[in-house]
Amino acid sequence: MYSATRRRASRLLGWTIALSLACINFGCTSAALPSWRDGQARSAVLQFIERTTDADSPDFVPPADRIAVFDNDGTLWAEQPAYFQLLFAIHRVRELAPQRPEWSTTEPFRTVLHGDMHALARQGEEALAKLVAASHSGMTTDEFAESVRRWLASARHPTLDRPFTACVYQPMLELLDHLRDNGYRTFIVSGGGIEFMRVFAQEVYGVPPEQVIGSRAAVALETRDGVPVLVKRPAIEFIDDKAGKPIAINLHIGRRPVMAFGNSDGDLDMLLWTTSRTGPSFAALIHHDDADREWAYDRASHIGRLDAALNQAPARGWTIVSMRRDWESVFPPQSAPQP
Amino acid sequence: MYSATRRRASRLLGWTIALSLACINFGCTSAALPSWRDGQARSAVLQFIERTTDADSPDFVPPADRIAVFDNDGTLWAEQPAYFQLLFAIHRVRELAPQRPEWSTTEPFRTVLHGDMHALARQGEEALAKLVAASHSGMTTDEFAESVRRWLASARHPTLDRPFTACVYQPMLELLDHLRDNGYRTFIVSGGGIEFMRVFAQEVYGVPPEQVIGSRAAVALETRDGVPVLVKRPAIEFIDDKAGKPIAINLHIGRRPVMAFGNSDGDLDMLLWTTSRTGPSFAALIHHDDADREWAYDRASHIGRLDAALNQAPARGWTIVSMRRDWESVFPPQSAPQP
Repeated sequence: MYSATRRRASRLLGWTIALSLACINFGCTSAALPSWRDGQARSAVLQFIERTTDADSPDFVPPADRIAVFDNDGTLWAEQPAYFQLLFAIHRVRELAPQRPEWSTTEPFRTVLHGDMHALARQGEEALAKLVAASHSGMTTDEFAESVRRWLASARHPTLDRPFTACVYQPMLELLDHLRDNGYRTFIVSGGGIEFMRVFAQEVYGVPPEQVIGSRAAVALETRDGVPVLVKRPAIEFIDDKAGKPIAINLHIGRRPVMAFGNSDGDLDMLLWTTSRTGPSFAALIHHDDADREWAYDRASHIGRLDAALNQAPARGWTIVSMRRDWESVFPPQSAPQP
Repeated sequence: MYSATRRRASRLLGWTIALSLACINFGCTSAALPSWRDGQARSAVLQFIERTTDADSPDFVPPADRIAVFDNDGTLWAEQPAYFQLLFAIHRVRELAPQRPEWSTTEPFRTVLHGDMHALARQGEEALAKLVAASHSGMTTDEFAESVRRWLASARHPTLDRPFTACVYQPMLELLDHLRDNGYRTFIVSGGGIEFMRVFAQEVYGVPPEQVIGSRAAVALETRDGVPVLVKRPAIEFIDDKAGKPIAINLHIGRRPVMAFGNSDGDLDMLLWTTSRTGPSFAALIHHDDADREWAYDRASHIGRLDAALNQAPARGWTIVSMRRDWESVFPPQSAPQP
């Protein structure tokens, strides 16, 4: 009796080991990316990760070079009906307006205070950066981070009716995790403000501050109460969009990434920069074609316009991720409302 | 007989385990930093590392926050009789001068072409950055890196008569290793050019490109033969010295470091920035007081002037590392000359 139990246990152990080995051999991809539907996009990304992490593959990439870069707005979280940071800036501009009477006659503040979101969208990303820089001048970086934290804790998306940090894409969270499980370091390279994104990137995406790259305002070193602080100035110093993305990647990372993910023409230069590296590379565009679960927009959109990059993708072998077709779910499950 | 051997093996194993545990408990500091002499500086740095990596210590620092920043010139490698990058720039300016006749009448090129090193030194770090930026404009970042690589492979220090990459401080190489062995990430934060230092930082210091922070020229994204490249422009964009150091640390790292090492007043703001973090922090100044083995200079030097920081160190509890007293050896042993 004892012997039979032992034999059964031994057989079970054998199976477990065999399955584990199979799992290692086949990269366990069946369990990876559960919110992605089987299809070309999921296969392409999983196979690329397998190929570049298999020491016996001709496409093996040493761990130090395994760098994946992600746009944020429209790639990791939603960007409709307006960039979330714009909604934060509007909140701050309205809060601060009584102390800044000159804003009522200068753009883009005038438009913000009139509440004309469409007019603001037409002013482009530079207007957003101006709002962000100007509405926070005179604050230290720590005070700014605190104001973002406060807003994120209470504000809700106007139509999705959930916190902004819950308007992230579940399939992309899984991809970030899967890449890190495979020795890739994940960087954010976004037109969004670097100080803004750092407030939530660790907690929401698992991306530490030193791997967050974005647009920035100038800062000045000052001493307050004997402590050195950095004070955000009204001047925009750098916009991390279009050609700015390769420039920022070079500045912060110092080598070409292996994988790049974006969703708009603002990411085109980053994808070209990545895929022109020596050795294997991978680029993908998230295509917003799901009006039911998210939004559907591309060539004609004022936000996240995707036109030239969409034209170039097929010839360059870039993967198009269709939100409608390739994603089983879009947003993370909502947790029960807090009391 | 078999049993006695087994008993002896078992006793040996026991001792090995006991020794390993002792080693863990006491941090094995006796073997660490072999080129540092016993004394206050060595003890202070080793004890700080022990305290911040011991999970039971009130000063424990979680691994993600374990960041140590190092100035380069005069802290990790020598900076006499002139910044090494200045010697490289002079080499390049002379090489390129026939194609740039206007340099014969404009500063600091005129001074360089006249070979007046003392006059050049008096023009300060901004002159160095100008030389570096201007003498390399029109080159891609890859072409620039290649020119640095070529120079490093052949040039020798004028008085130490060894390659510049062998003019690094052996005790600091050991410190970098010891910090990394204890879960610290080591960053370079230097007035030197970021593209210049990245060429050798990995090989010489074990510091990867994304952990090298420095001064920079503006770059432009261009397409050459269908490949996107970054072309270095003549404009200086940022000087990573004095107030620039905390600004650059905030931009690239996004959190205050725990440990900072410098050797001049250009590092003062970085040391103040580091030691004003919440929680334990450590700052040290390398004091060049060894005219026999290296150089002796501080308050009156045109290069690496150490005056205000030296005044502030005692009251702030910063460690002064005397090269003469605290270092058993200064430079790494010279390997046999290559055929």
